[in-house]
Amino acid sequence: MNGKMKALVKHYEGEGAQLQEVDIPVVGKQEVLIEVEATSICGTDVHIYNWDDWSKSRVKPPYVFGHEFAGKVVAIGESVQRVSVGDYVSAETHIVCYRCPQCLTGNYHICENTEIIGVDRQGCFAEYVALPEENIWINPNDMEKDIASIQEPMGNAVHTVLNGEVAGKNVAIIGCGPIGLMAVGVAKAAGASQVFALDVNPYRLELAKQMGATTVVHSLEEDPVQKVKSLTVGHGADVVCEMSGHPVAMDQGFKMITNGGRVSILSLPVKPVTLDVTNDIVFKGVRVEGITGRKMFETWQQVSRLLHSKQVDVKPIITHHFALEDFEKGFQLMNEGKCGKVVLHPKGL
Amino acid sequence: MNGKMKALVKHYEGEGAQLQEVDIPVVGKQEVLIEVEATSICGTDVHIYNWDDWSKSRVKPPYVFGHEFAGKVVAIGESVQRVSVGDYVSAETHIVCYRCPQCLTGNYHICENTEIIGVDRQGCFAEYVALPEENIWINPNDMEKDIASIQEPMGNAVHTVLNGEVAGKNVAIIGCGPIGLMAVGVAKAAGASQVFALDVNPYRLELAKQMGATTVVHSLEEDPVQKVKSLTVGHGADVVCEMSGHPVAMDQGFKMITNGGRVSILSLPVKPVTLDVTNDIVFKGVRVEGITGRKMFETWQQVSRLLHSKQVDVKPIITHHFALEDFEKGFQLMNEGKCGKVVLHPKGL
Amino acid sequence: MNGKMKALVKHYEGEGAQLQEVDIPVVGKQEVLIEVEATSICGTDVHIYNWDDWSKSRVKPPYVFGHEFAGKVVAIGESVQRVSVGDYVSAETHIVCYRCPQCLTGNYHICENTEIIGVDRQGCFAEYVALPEENIWINPNDMEKDIASIQEPMGNAVHTVLNGEVAGKNVAIIGCGPIGLMAVGVAKAAGASQVFALDVNPYRLELAKQMGATTVVHSLEEDPVQKVKSLTVGHGADVVCEMSGHPVAMDQGFKMITNGGRVSILSLPVKPVTLDVTNDIVFKGVRVEGITGRKMFETWQQVSRLLHSKQVDVKPIITHHFALEDFEKGFQLMNEGKCGKVVLHPKGL
Amino acid sequence: MNGKMKALVKHYEGEGAQLQEVDIPVVGKQEVLIEVEATSICGTDVHIYNWDDWSKSRVKPPYVFGHEFAGKVVAIGESVQRVSVGDYVSAETHIVCYRCPQCLTGNYHICENTEIIGVDRQGCFAEYVALPEENIWINPNDMEKDIASIQEPMGNAVHTVLNGEVAGKNVAIIGCGPIGLMAVGVAKAAGASQVFALDVNPYRLELAKQMGATTVVHSLEEDPVQKVKSLTVGHGADVVCEMSGHPVAMDQGFKMITNGGRVSILSLPVKPVTLDVTNDIVFKGVRVEGITGRKMFETWQQVSRLLHSKQVDVKPIITHHFALEDFEKGFQLMNEGKCGKVVLHPKGL
Repeated sequence: MNGKMKALVKHYEGEGAQLQEVDIPVVGKQEVLIEVEATSICGTDVHIYNWDDWSKSRVKPPYVFGHEFAGKVVAIGESVQRVSVGDYVSAETHIVCYRCPQCLTGNYHICENTEIIGVDRQGCFAEYVALPEENIWINPNDMEKDIASIQEPMGNAVHTVLNGEVAGKNVAIIGCGPIGLMAVGVAKAAGASQVFALDVNPYRLELAKQMGATTVVHSLEEDPVQKVKSLTVGHGADVVCEMSGHPVAMDQGFKMITNGGRVSILSLPVKPVTLDVTNDIVFKGVRVEGITGRKMFETWQQVSRLLHSKQVDVKPIITHHFALEDFEKGFQLMNEGKCGKVVLHPKGL
Repeated sequence: MNGKMKALVKHYEGEGAQLQEVDIPVVGKQEVLIEVEATSICGTDVHIYNWDDWSKSRVKPPYVFGHEFAGKVVAIGESVQRVSVGDYVSAETHIVCYRCPQCLTGNYHICENTEIIGVDRQGCFAEYVALPEENIWINPNDMEKDIASIQEPMGNAVHTVLNGEVAGKNVAIIGCGPIGLMAVGVAKAAGASQVFALDVNPYRLELAKQMGATTVVHSLEEDPVQKVKSLTVGHGADVVCEMSGHPVAMDQGFKMITNGGRVSILSLPVKPVTLDVTNDIVFKGVRVEGITGRKMFETWQQVSRLLHSKQVDVKPIITHHFALEDFEKGFQLMNEGKCGKVVLHPKGL
Repeated sequence: MNGKMKALVKHYEGEGAQLQEVDIPVVGKQEVLIEVEATSICGTDVHIYNWDDWSKSRVKPPYVFGHEFAGKVVAIGESVQRVSVGDYVSAETHIVCYRCPQCLTGNYHICENTEIIGVDRQGCFAEYVALPEENIWINPNDMEKDIASIQEPMGNAVHTVLNGEVAGKNVAIIGCGPIGLMAVGVAKAAGASQVFALDVNPYRLELAKQMGATTVVHSLEEDPVQKVKSLTVGHGADVVCEMSGHPVAMDQGFKMITNGGRVSILSLPVKPVTLDVTNDIVFKGVRVEGITGRKMFETWQQVSRLLHSKQVDVKPIITHHFALEDFEKGFQLMNEGKCGKVVLHPKGL
Repeated sequence: MNGKMKALVKHYEGEGAQLQEVDIPVVGKQEVLIEVEATSICGTDVHIYNWDDWSKSRVKPPYVFGHEFAGKVVAIGESVQRVSVGDYVSAETHIVCYRCPQCLTGNYHICENTEIIGVDRQGCFAEYVALPEENIWINPNDMEKDIASIQEPMGNAVHTVLNGEVAGKNVAIIGCGPIGLMAVGVAKAAGASQVFALDVNPYRLELAKQMGATTVVHSLEEDPVQKVKSLTVGHGADVVCEMSGHPVAMDQGFKMITNGGRVSILSLPVKPVTLDVTNDIVFKGVRVEGITGRKMFETWQQVSRLLHSKQVDVKPIITHHFALEDFEKGFQLMNEGKCGKVVLHPKGL
């Protein structure tokens, strides 16, 4: 397929991005070309847009960024076998090597040679995106586009929450950005007895309530450790999902976890974190787990089914829709924290 | 505490039971005396009442039977430390040895020397019951008596369903007696994507719908294996909970399980069962688990929290209430299968 | 690569096989061509050679059979990326679809659409074999050829034994064919406290001793259930690995397992098996696992490392070597059970 | 049993200890009295002896310290049921509450109300010690006294190493004090492919070799991270057991762990530790586990069987024996690090 397309380009080494007309990507032998119908903004995209330290060290403008989407397959490479033109798809954003010990033992999500779509190669903030067949996830035809688009971050939430037992447990979600909000819904759907949602943003705490949090805690207005302990007969939370990246909040997570509890960390603190290993991990017999990406494709299967069965309803979190051209409004909202998920529509609203 | 009490006595080696006035039990040093406020009828009680082959080989009349209950502690033995007079309690029915390898490794529910309340020793179909302190489970004060009474069988359901992952899975419950019905509710609460309820009793299939089954299957009116396969894109159920004890149904369970699935068996088929081990277990890489009792007390904690948080609502299953004196009505309903749980009230309705 | 090669061909629908000169296989785009340096005989090959009922229903002569081997890569297809000419390799024999739910969740070994090398397509009893790149396992250069050749069946042993905890456990291996013998070595290497080896073949029981069995039991000369119980203070084995396929032996396995134990079944009984589900699985809280193939490639990694580190020494099991031309001697020994592993050498001894 | 006995008393709030004549302990209803035949010195005892900051905050002189031992039961309280006079025993040192959520779910080792023998109550550096029946572990009669005495710290090693898969893995043990040395032996016995032992003490590295380390690394003489990576084709260790408590060594552990690896921490760093959570835990998908005590009594069963079967031979680690009177020599050796385990003999050598 030849021709030009609209795309949101990280055009230079500085703040912002630019809508440009660029070539439609060429499809490799084992790749498929997808017409993007909805694409949502991730925190990572905001980092790139804002040009923070991490972005400076990692991405190489100019290139198209963005990695969460849903769309239709419009062309396939000659060796493609699993995907057909017309399939309604989303995609895993980690492109992995299939050769390292992690890949060979099925742990693709921690592949030693991971490339990320929209970070290390062309992304999906565009009318079309070309991706390896292996990364494609086929959606049920009746799944709405905006919902299909946010399966990738929902996968982070599912991977974090369901990395151990949840039913009948008391679960604390620290940090109620979009993934934290989805985590609230997942914990509730998976049978958590209580779900504590912690943040400092009243707008997002309100969304947490809508997602099923049994208690929301504004961490500056009351002591979250005391609050969680008081709601658990003094024992603490059985599971803590750390999604804030804030060192104080992370430390609070370790203080509120019960003996033998699980702390699953999805967040990426920008600096090393000081932890009381002896008292908060060893004596308490705590299990700490670093969570990255999504199990390929076990997590995608869970996400798809939890959404399709309506066990988790993410509609309250999808707060804003814009045409791709209006991307600046989306990034501004994300920077202000006054939104859940923001979805961009390359074909217009 | 001295005096007499009403009790339902398995009075002889034959069918039926008799309401009698007997001595209030004497409390041993490490025992507590409980005033029974609600006590529910289990399938095991029906076996004893009907005097089937198993009963003939196991129980020794005359004695008080019954083992599911809720009540108040009215006296404690001199060495009791964990329980106080006035506590609102239920109890684990397995009295274990704390010495065998299973007990020493925390697997009390499969103790090699288990005694069962109401089977091997005096039970709770009475105004009072005396039990070892170790077996007592303290209930939240605001839990209704009939709900507190059925925690023990609910524990069987929870132990069976939650013995592996459930969230986002397709789960088949074979056999919709009271425990099967609770299993439907537990699977739904724990995030199952689809819950298939299978039985041949329309009354109970109707209750299964109320408990959240996404599909109910009358196993004589349609082929349950084909039905489950058709609802799972041909792959089969991820989890099968066998609660019928019927050899044909059990075999169907092994035919409908997907490769790599889990078959958890709580039922007790009366004869050996013929299974196609090669095709249904080995080639499919299936995991089969025998489930008995409740993990002490991990399962009780899960049950209590799932009920207290309303993640599982068992009200639709508690279909009948009678004064203890009207026990015959209860046993008749149980024999007819036209009921969910039947609760007896020693203090009257 | 063109030309002719020697190959052992299942040449017709009847007993036996024939050494023939056939075309060297053509290498597909994603395939590699391997010069076979050692190839070992599996029980499956004996079934095909003997032309039993299973063979009649499954394989389509004429074709080259055999699936266990080690060799050098001599050519690669144009799309091959992970494997190079000169690599010293063996191969996983399950060719899987990468599309079914099992493949998508990393459970390739129970792929719903598995094809098996040497059964459903051309095998390795030949000078050359062509295989998909995805199936290739690269060996350490200093691993001996005969040892590298038997990694595939060793993978069955490892998959069975290590499918749960072993260190400090009492493990019974029922059936001491080559895989059972390897299982003895694996159990010992993984820290089993006692390893009981059961069979009715004195030759193989002697090999079991050499592999580290702490007790060998001739199941016709003494009661294996009583023997195992007497060696475990009456409690029974913690782990039973069923590798005999004999219904009586399998039933004994369920009688000798301790409460809460694990029965891992690798064998393929030719008829349905009658089991006392109530007493031997449910009341005992036993976990039963069907084992097939090898986890791709977690099991291969374990096998390679256990062999390379000398934690398991399989030399005592590799009892016979023949040139490919002398295949009849090998199959005769296998039929008589007077051997461990028999290795054929297409290049001569 | 009345009378006086020799005991090593932490006699005041300062450095050292004193051999005194004290009353033989009175046995409570559920306690047993044990004649101590061998008692070994733990690092904790050295902290108490040296009167470090932790000791000052925790222990209350005067009292008898010490907690590792083997001996004979010479008297039992009136309610004791599981233990008899004449039994050859050791004991779990955590006295737990049996009431908190951890105890109720079988996680006694992380009981919220743990008391420790020889720390919070009278210990076993004496001719006799009285202990609760629940804490007694009965030894095989043919186990040597010094070996039976060190089962408690061996339990720490077993709990740490066997808290996940080991067979075929590359395992690094950081810190080769007596528990680290036992961990080396356990990892080897459980089938580890490579066991890397890291320390800065040549005497202990030499013992590590005797315990089966495949490589010993003097962490000041070569870069331990580079060394472990070079021995694992650049991928790193699959399992790291942190037993040094040193913040630099702990950080190295996180640098040398492979993606998806397990870091089990038994050590107790004296200050909070700064960790690169983002790069060393989250992106690598690492599992971190705090390990304390021994699973009651699963770990004891493993220890007893690993020792009794000779899968682990701890003889090389038991380097010194003294009469109780010569305790000063033992503590001096421990302070100098020129020993493995030091065993004291209240009855003389």
